[in-house]
Amino acid sequence: MNKAKRAGMGRLLGVGVGPGDPELMTLKAMRALGEADLIAHFAKAGNASHSRAIAARHLRPGIAELPLFYPVTTELPSCSDGYRNTINNFYDDAAAKIAAHLSAGRVVAVICEGDPLFYGSYMHLHARLAARFHSEIVAGVTGMSGCWSAAGLPIAQGDDVFTVLPATLPEDELARRLGDADAAVVMKVGRHLPKVRRVLEKSGRLARAVYVERGTMADAKTIPLAAKADDDAPYFAVVLVPGWEQRP
Amino acid sequence: MNKAKRAGMGRLLGVGVGPGDPELMTLKAMRALGEADLIAHFAKAGNASHSRAIAARHLRPGIAELPLFYPVTTELPSCSDGYRNTINNFYDDAAAKIAAHLSAGRVVAVICEGDPLFYGSYMHLHARLAARFHSEIVAGVTGMSGCWSAAGLPIAQGDDVFTVLPATLPEDELARRLGDADAAVVMKVGRHLPKVRRVLEKSGRLARAVYVERGTMADAKTIPLAAKADDDAPYFAVVLVPGWEQRP
Repeated sequence: MNKAKRAGMGRLLGVGVGPGDPELMTLKAMRALGEADLIAHFAKAGNASHSRAIAARHLRPGIAELPLFYPVTTELPSCSDGYRNTINNFYDDAAAKIAAHLSAGRVVAVICEGDPLFYGSYMHLHARLAARFHSEIVAGVTGMSGCWSAAGLPIAQGDDVFTVLPATLPEDELARRLGDADAAVVMKVGRHLPKVRRVLEKSGRLARAVYVERGTMADAKTIPLAAKADDDAPYFAVVLVPGWEQRP
Repeated sequence: MNKAKRAGMGRLLGVGVGPGDPELMTLKAMRALGEADLIAHFAKAGNASHSRAIAARHLRPGIAELPLFYPVTTELPSCSDGYRNTINNFYDDAAAKIAAHLSAGRVVAVICEGDPLFYGSYMHLHARLAARFHSEIVAGVTGMSGCWSAAGLPIAQGDDVFTVLPATLPEDELARRLGDADAAVVMKVGRHLPKVRRVLEKSGRLARAVYVERGTMADAKTIPLAAKADDDAPYFAVVLVPGWEQRP
């Protein structure tokens, strides 16, 4: 343990609260919420935090909260300098606020949808704070596990190669990578839905693909991709392409 | 609901109990254990079941149990006809035993390490029973989430391509696929450890790779792959290759 992580300093907890169904929270997440002096959560400006909604029934009444509102989400391309500068400043500022609480000896739980270190915003705080403060991660059920479980769809088995792909990839690269995987999850589908469908149709895998909206939420929508119209799909919709063909 | 799934029939529950730490069980898994009339679990012949050990403290005293012992694990190559016939017969027999309980109106919970539909043996029962009986999946924290969380290692972010690869792949294919992914988990490392190390060394990613043995178990071992000797590695050891380079 390095000098900065001395006794009297607080603890940073990255707490996965699972994919949406509050029952998919772990016992360890519940304990972390009980130990925390402060609950931090990310949300789109003007929106309620999804992770807070999942954990709501397990928060102590009156617990201090630190909402962290993204200054920008999909308004700017994520590769632009404008986006990177804005989002970097936001994470720097959020980390500084949390560091002040940790330095004062508090236990800060950052609650995260899914799993904190798998495509989660918490990682940006972890990268800024874990070297200076004691940190612990509470693993969570990922959004994609929630999706294939709700669909009752075995996704990968045995020696399957499993790949997670963003739908933002160029069409030929998406086709190449899907062709190279036994099983796949295509994420951030949104306006890329027609492209994802074309690629799967060409490779003969459209019939096996499943479209999932709002994962394990109460209003989840799970249908064969072939039956989904090319209309609006939410940014966080996913397409599941199961592997495990011709196996026992 | 089809005819076979009529009232009076039992329910098949595929219950993920997470990666090893009993605290990483979900509230939903706890409820499923409380509702079950019978708990089924897989184990290597002569060994205690890992999933049962994880769930042990939450089983009702005296609950009926159905242990399912693999007739073969790594003794035969998994591509051989001998392996496939033996393991197919085993799953057929296990499914028939469970079907008898379901037909008698019982609730059967098959407890699974990690997540039931992600590289889990439960899938073989699901494939044989889900069309005939009402089934529900309780998603679980995967073994790999448990590993990168215990290591405090952010694994994938933003538009990273994330891939799960079996270490059993030929060396050139493993190299090609690792080179094509931003982030990866290499599973079933065992005797393939020297090959995995060579591939990562050649691609300049050895310094970032982390070796994990026994995931979130009490005796977990998490060290830089560069510091791990090329001696015995357990079959279920994994190597984590984080993505998320040069990002905020």
